[in-house]
Amino acid sequence: MKRRCTIALDAMGGDHGPSVVVPAARRFLATNPHVSLILVGKEDLIREHLSGEPLEERVRVHATTQEVAMDELPSKALRGKKDSSMRVAIDLVKDGGADACVSAGNTGALMATARFVLKMLPNVDRPAIITAVPSLYDHTHMLDLGANVDCTAEHLFQFAVMGSELVAAVEGIARPKVALLNIGQEEIKGNEQVKQAHELLSSSGLNYIGYVEGDGIFLDDLDLVVSDGFVGNVALKCSEGVARFVRHSLASQFRRTWLTRLAGLAALPILRGLRRNIDPRRYNGASLLGLRGIVIKSHGGADEVAFENAIYIAEKEIHASIPQRIGEQVGRHLDREQYRETA
Amino acid sequence: MKRRCTIALDAMGGDHGPSVVVPAARRFLATNPHVSLILVGKEDLIREHLSGEPLEERVRVHATTQEVAMDELPSKALRGKKDSSMRVAIDLVKDGGADACVSAGNTGALMATARFVLKMLPNVDRPAIITAVPSLYDHTHMLDLGANVDCTAEHLFQFAVMGSELVAAVEGIARPKVALLNIGQEEIKGNEQVKQAHELLSSSGLNYIGYVEGDGIFLDDLDLVVSDGFVGNVALKCSEGVARFVRHSLASQFRRTWLTRLAGLAALPILRGLRRNIDPRRYNGASLLGLRGIVIKSHGGADEVAFENAIYIAEKEIHASIPQRIGEQVGRHLDREQYRETA
Repeated sequence: MKRRCTIALDAMGGDHGPSVVVPAARRFLATNPHVSLILVGKEDLIREHLSGEPLEERVRVHATTQEVAMDELPSKALRGKKDSSMRVAIDLVKDGGADACVSAGNTGALMATARFVLKMLPNVDRPAIITAVPSLYDHTHMLDLGANVDCTAEHLFQFAVMGSELVAAVEGIARPKVALLNIGQEEIKGNEQVKQAHELLSSSGLNYIGYVEGDGIFLDDLDLVVSDGFVGNVALKCSEGVARFVRHSLASQFRRTWLTRLAGLAALPILRGLRRNIDPRRYNGASLLGLRGIVIKSHGGADEVAFENAIYIAEKEIHASIPQRIGEQVGRHLDREQYRETA
Repeated sequence: MKRRCTIALDAMGGDHGPSVVVPAARRFLATNPHVSLILVGKEDLIREHLSGEPLEERVRVHATTQEVAMDELPSKALRGKKDSSMRVAIDLVKDGGADACVSAGNTGALMATARFVLKMLPNVDRPAIITAVPSLYDHTHMLDLGANVDCTAEHLFQFAVMGSELVAAVEGIARPKVALLNIGQEEIKGNEQVKQAHELLSSSGLNYIGYVEGDGIFLDDLDLVVSDGFVGNVALKCSEGVARFVRHSLASQFRRTWLTRLAGLAALPILRGLRRNIDPRRYNGASLLGLRGIVIKSHGGADEVAFENAIYIAEKEIHASIPQRIGEQVGRHLDREQYRETA
C-alpha cells in the first residue's frame, strides 16, 4: 500500500477555476485512496462545485480571499497577493501542510512565488520547467520550457542533471538517455552555450548521447531533451501548433463530400486512437524543478481529465521524493572536478 | 509571355545527385518554356541520367571535377573545392551566365560559398534562410532557419525587412503581416534581442503585428515569422518531426486489425488529401536572402517533385528581381531615423 500524502490544489487557477479543479479532484480521489486533497480558494465557489455531495474526509477546503489573474505580472502577484489561492497552496507545501501543490494559474507568477516561498535547492541556480511529450518511443521529457530565456552552459548542465534524475525516478529508468537540443547547420554546430554544455555533459556521469535536432524530440529514442527556456518553449508550442493544424486539416478533408464523411465514420475508431496517442491531456502537468518542494503547473486551459493528470504527476513526484533526490544528484555532479574546472 | 531566364543546378548536391536533379530538370522544362537550365557536375554521370534522350536546346551540361560532401566543413569546401558543382553553379550566377542557382548540397558550405562569391547587399550584415511552411491560412514564411545562431536586434530587424520584401514580391501581398517569434512565459516577455527588435519593428514602416508564440506559426493569420537561426531551425525541424510522428501514428492505427485496415482503405482519399496539404515537397526550396544574387537551397533528401519545386522558387525570385528589391528596401528602412538612433 502506498504511503499517505496530501496535495494542495489551487482551485482558482487556470481558465476554468473550481469548475474544472473540483471535478478533477473528485476523479482523482476515486482511484487514489492514499491521497488527501486540499482545495485552496474562494470557499463559496468551491462548495458550489462540490454541489451538495457530502464532503469526503479526504478533501478539505482552505479558504482564501484573493486570486492571481492569468495576465498578472509575477512581481505584482508576489507582493500584493499574499492570500491568493496560488500563494497559499505553495505556503502549504512550505509549512508541511501539503506534500505538493498543483496550479493551472499564470506560469510566471507561479514560478516567482514558488521560488520565493520554497527557495532553490543548494547548487541549483535556476528553476526549470519540465514536461513529457509524445514521441515514436511513447514519450520523452523536455526542459526548460520557458523559465529561463538566457542560459549559460552551466545552467544547461544543471537542467540535464535535474531532468535526468526526475526521469530516472518517475519512469524507473536506471540511466536515462539525455540529449542536447541543437541545430545542424553551422560549421561548428550551435551557439557557444550549447557547445560548452556539450563539453560538460560529455565528461559527466550522465548517460549523455549528444546533440539532437528538433525533429529528433519526436522521432528518436531519447528520455530527456535539454535546451534553454526560449528554445524549449518554442519547440513545445510548435509541436502543439502542428498537431492542431494536422487535426484541423484531417477534419476538413473528412467534411468535404458525403463520401468523405462516410469514410470519416468508418475511420472514427482510428482517429480516436490517434487522438489518444497524441492527446495533450495525457501529458498535462509540468514540474518546476530545482525547488525545495514539489510544484506542478497545469495548462491554463486544462479540462478535468487533463487537470487530474497533473495531480497524478504530483503524486508520483511525492513518492519518488523528487526534490531530495535532485538535491543529492546535483550535489554529486557538482562535486565532480571537471565541472568545477570548466564552470 | 515571361522573360527568358537561365538557372544553374548543382547536379551533384544532396543525397541523390543527378538521379534526382536531372529528372527534376526535365519535369520543370516541360512546363516552363521560357527557362533554360545548366546542369553543373560530373558530365558522364549527368549524361547517364539524361539517358540517351536528345539533349533539349534549353539544357546544357557544365562539367566540373569536384563535389562538396554533405558533411564537409564549409571552410574546407570554400578553400579546397573551387571546381565543385556547388561553387561553379554560384560562380555562374556571379558572372551572369545564370540568373539563379539551386543546390541540394551542404547548407553551411552553400551559405559560406554564396556569401564569399556573391557578396552581401549593402547594409545587410548577415544572410538569412527563408522558406514557406504550411499553416491553417495555407502557408506562411519563416526566417532565419539556421544561418545565424546568435543575432542582435538589428539582425532580426534586417531579416524582417528582407523577408517582408520577399513575401510581398513573390506572393503579391502589398503589406505582409510580420510577427516576431517569442515566448509568453516571462514577466517581461522574451530575451533582450527580441524585446529590442520588437521596438525597432514597432516603429518601422513594416506591417508589424507583434509577437507570436510557436503554435501561431501554424495557426495564425501571418505572412512572415522572424526569429534567430537557432530558434527558427528548431521550430522548423520540430514541425517536420511532429508531422512525421502523426503520419506514423495514423498509419500504425490503421494497421491494427483487419477492420481498421478496411477503414484505412475507405479513408485513403482523405489521407492523400491530408498528405497533399502538408506535403513537405510542396514547400521544398529555401532562399538565401541578403546576397547579391539568387541562391535556393533544396532539402538534401529531396525527390524530383521536391527539387522541381525549388527550381520553381528560383524562377519566381528571378522574375520578382528579389536581390534588387531587397537592396532597395533595406536601404529605405535603414535610412529611417529611429533605426539609426536605436542601432
